[in-house]
Amino acid sequence: MDLASFKQLTYGVFVVASGDNTKKGAYICTVAVQITSRPYKLAIACNKNNYTAEIIQEKKNFSVSILKQNYAPTTMGNFGFRTGKDFNKFEKADFIYGQETGCPIILTDTMAWFECQLEQTVDAGSHYLFIGNVLQCEIVNNEDVPLTYQYYQDVKKGVSHKNAPSFNK
Amino acid sequence: MDLASFKQLTYGVFVVASGDNTKKGAYICTVAVQITSRPYKLAIACNKNNYTAEIIQEKKNFSVSILKQNYAPTTMGNFGFRTGKDFNKFEKADFIYGQETGCPIILTDTMAWFECQLEQTVDAGSHYLFIGNVLQCEIVNNEDVPLTYQYYQDVKKGVSHKNAPSFNK
Repeated sequence: MDLASFKQLTYGVFVVASGDNTKKGAYICTVAVQITSRPYKLAIACNKNNYTAEIIQEKKNFSVSILKQNYAPTTMGNFGFRTGKDFNKFEKADFIYGQETGCPIILTDTMAWFECQLEQTVDAGSHYLFIGNVLQCEIVNNEDVPLTYQYYQDVKKGVSHKNAPSFNK
Repeated sequence: MDLASFKQLTYGVFVVASGDNTKKGAYICTVAVQITSRPYKLAIACNKNNYTAEIIQEKKNFSVSILKQNYAPTTMGNFGFRTGKDFNKFEKADFIYGQETGCPIILTDTMAWFECQLEQTVDAGSHYLFIGNVLQCEIVNNEDVPLTYQYYQDVKKGVSHKNAPSFNK
């Protein structure tokens, strides 16, 4: 079992947000994939310990913002590596509320975003897979390229959080 | 709703295989992600119309082979764009049978592979999400880089199959 195999899997890097104007959460996510197109559905992975996991289940919504390669270092520090339970991740963020669900949608360093209604929750052990119907999606930036997890690790020398699905000790 | 947003999502390209030495199937897959690490689990998306979807459910196994960027054009033609119901995709392929499950594992143009026991089947509409426990994984090639779907589309000018989760009309 050569664990280096997992390093060869390809991922993007995303900010997932959930909630409304009374309560909201956000985290850095590497698993956000389209799984059907009729209707348009996305699946995301979320550690059960993430504060946002609780909010997604309560508010039944989530948004996915695709990060650009040339992101500001503060973006990763703001949304990742700490919990939103006792820190306001939205204070310095550029964001809007989605028109369909009221879900916060992060615009900071975003290429494109998706606003989703939670449709299905899959218990996969340490993580949930949340499946959502895409109600809205928009391009914010056409000039940069999407950040990949490989670029984040190899070029930006970014590290994995212990809550990541791909955190291999 | 700007559907170009979906094009900004990042994917790898994989050959998924399933079965045993009596009956087997394989298809080209763009959604293969690690979702937990204790234990190691992968999730893959598979169109319900794929012959391999039937085999995964019957044999309760699947393998994921990560394609290299410098793949042979015949590899895509062999595993994708036609059904294994009436064509033997394994005849010209380099493959082995996994020691844990007997599942075929494609080695042609492969960077690394995973042998999985099916653990959970999620019905997502037109597609299944199959979740598997990784029983074995090995690196085959350390010299090339993994193929991304973006590279396949933009550089290789590859097209999407109608059964792909990201086939947007």
